[in-house]
Amino acid sequence: MDDLHRKSPEEFRQSEKTPLLILLDNVRSLNNVGSVFRTSDAFLLHSIVLCGYTGTPPHRDIQKTALGATETVAWQYEADILEAMEKLKQDDWEIWAVEQASTSINLNNFQMTKGKKYALVFGNEVEGVQQAVIDRCAGCIEIPQQGMKHSLNISVSAGIVVWELWKQTQAVE
Amino acid sequence: MDDLHRKSPEEFRQSEKTPLLILLDNVRSLNNVGSVFRTSDAFLLHSIVLCGYTGTPPHRDIQKTALGATETVAWQYEADILEAMEKLKQDDWEIWAVEQASTSINLNNFQMTKGKKYALVFGNEVEGVQQAVIDRCAGCIEIPQQGMKHSLNISVSAGIVVWELWKQTQAVE
Repeated sequence: MDDLHRKSPEEFRQSEKTPLLILLDNVRSLNNVGSVFRTSDAFLLHSIVLCGYTGTPPHRDIQKTALGATETVAWQYEADILEAMEKLKQDDWEIWAVEQASTSINLNNFQMTKGKKYALVFGNEVEGVQQAVIDRCAGCIEIPQQGMKHSLNISVSAGIVVWELWKQTQAVE
Repeated sequence: MDDLHRKSPEEFRQSEKTPLLILLDNVRSLNNVGSVFRTSDAFLLHSIVLCGYTGTPPHRDIQKTALGATETVAWQYEADILEAMEKLKQDDWEIWAVEQASTSINLNNFQMTKGKKYALVFGNEVEGVQQAVIDRCAGCIEIPQQGMKHSLNISVSAGIVVWELWKQTQAVE
């Protein structure tokens, strides 16, 4: 299409998607939502499921960060994340929370299985992923951190985890 | 200090830092600036150099995203990035732009050399890194992207590149 080999909307829809899906649960910041749309466009993610009080497009503050990615990335809204998780499991998605917990797997050690589909849950900016959600996940993935704050921005966490898993999907194909 | 092994301010200052430094040149969004501070805290980066019209702490909108990381991460302001680059080079920093260019190296193929110090330049949200800056860099690093937009958010790009290079610094030590 141009020098950067951007896909047309039609090419994008017909492209085989990365077997990754993102669930955002009670994410307060519309900036974070928009940024996750852009990251999902960049790595051809399957879709985004927006849950709880997470904002949904169309919204000016999402659009400011998403820069059109809300038009290319498939998404749906589900008020109750536990119901959304049940449906995803029935459709063979393996669900992991991105969260710091005593049993978390270090992102460096997380190994995807070829042919499996993975859904990643990101929770509220302050509260993190709800325990009831963690209880229904296959496990937690944690980004190792060395600093004082131990809390990356959600859109940055999503970028790092999606990048790392996307690389694995590229390697196994 | 607590369950998450967060460092105290004193422990943080005395910690050996990752040999990575970030230059932000004409970055418009204070959200992006704050988020880069938080990422720099998480991966114990050496420092941040804020250039051009990039906003500087203290600022409410930086603080909202940085959540205190402006107190832990060393930073300085340099109006002219070309002067800042000269000083960094004299101090043995090898400077790379994170930018899409015909000669960019894919992030997957970027190999750090043990003992070297690396500075990463991120440019304006719309214009990218200035050509005069690219001309003075060792080269450009590019995050491979498959979607329609081909432009990750700066704070997400910074997160992904810092994560990938931080892993290398951990591996070679």
